[in-house]
Amino acid sequence: MQPKTASENLTSLGRYPERGHYDFETIAEILDAGLVCHVGVAAGEQPIVMPTIYGRIGSNLYLHGSPVARWLKGAASGANVCVTVSIIDALVLARSAYQHSLNYRSVVILGAAENVHDEPEKVDALRAIVEHVCRGRWEDVRPPTSGELKSTLVLRMPIVEASAKIRTGPPSDFDFDMQHSAWAGLIPLQTLRGAPIADPQLDAGISIPEYCLQERTLQ
Amino acid sequence: MQPKTASENLTSLGRYPERGHYDFETIAEILDAGLVCHVGVAAGEQPIVMPTIYGRIGSNLYLHGSPVARWLKGAASGANVCVTVSIIDALVLARSAYQHSLNYRSVVILGAAENVHDEPEKVDALRAIVEHVCRGRWEDVRPPTSGELKSTLVLRMPIVEASAKIRTGPPSDFDFDMQHSAWAGLIPLQTLRGAPIADPQLDAGISIPEYCLQERTLQ
Repeated sequence: MQPKTASENLTSLGRYPERGHYDFETIAEILDAGLVCHVGVAAGEQPIVMPTIYGRIGSNLYLHGSPVARWLKGAASGANVCVTVSIIDALVLARSAYQHSLNYRSVVILGAAENVHDEPEKVDALRAIVEHVCRGRWEDVRPPTSGELKSTLVLRMPIVEASAKIRTGPPSDFDFDMQHSAWAGLIPLQTLRGAPIADPQLDAGISIPEYCLQERTLQ
Repeated sequence: MQPKTASENLTSLGRYPERGHYDFETIAEILDAGLVCHVGVAAGEQPIVMPTIYGRIGSNLYLHGSPVARWLKGAASGANVCVTVSIIDALVLARSAYQHSLNYRSVVILGAAENVHDEPEKVDALRAIVEHVCRGRWEDVRPPTSGELKSTLVLRMPIVEASAKIRTGPPSDFDFDMQHSAWAGLIPLQTLRGAPIADPQLDAGISIPEYCLQERTLQ
């Protein structure tokens, strides 16, 4: 699937167009690798940006939260929102301050989110969100009751007007800086899981499941 | 410094008010611990959220970028923006799907950013940004020329209308779920630096500086 009008709209990249990607596979890979997104909504003339987790099913991104959360009510109102996912892969240390950068993968999705009312779709969305954060978890948990579903707002964001931006590789110094004496290169960053910490109230007979022991996060 | 009118404005917390913090020290600590922020600007009726690095000097947060970057031009226009910094500390695995959560520290700053024209303040801001990302780096780099300063937009965001939100601790399960057989607890997350990767064009005589070898990121 190709985003509808990416080359003419707000998701087109004004700077570094060579870093832009509009193919769905690249976009989906970054979404699946990220952990949280940052959602932008307008509160009158004041934009609000909130971090939240998400899940992807095919070409839809799902968000969820409390129906009394103001930013989520704003996103559910049918107004345009922006969902941004960013993964920082490395610090890029150049010879000049000016050429310092980051290696990163990011996705920006624009458009209106849709309020999901259908109960089975809500459950699918919540499963996708839990599985996105911790693959394997859903099978173990006490699933949502009908009352819990009613008091959870689930939003569907179509991944249509979307773009990815990626920077990789070493610093891009100017030729006239190449003799500068500073070390130059990358400092890779990685988000890792530590050893699980059991709930103090956990029954001593319950052991840590395998899916909690994967060292690397989804990123 | 106390945020001006936090209890009456958009930065006040509607949900989980016990997670809210409005004291400057808490806010500054989270800003200093984060790596990137997500900046929300309005492009007409479409909010746009972009990740970018930042630096803090006292009660000002500084952002920078190219004067042709559309989101930054939007932020420089005097319109209200939102700067959000989020650090995810742990996955919170509860017994019910409903009570799953994250442990996190986040800061939201609202208001208008100011375009910095003064050259010494611009240099100070860029130093703060580079040092925020990699402490110790500024002394080694070729500093910005006057021309580079002119082609860099620097914005000052006063940390005034701001709030922090923090979740810590184990899952908060309902009493009636405590006998459920699922493992419950925290999976801590940490962003770590890997071994530095030298620029392929680096002079072989230049060794890796000490400040590149700190294992843990600022987070």
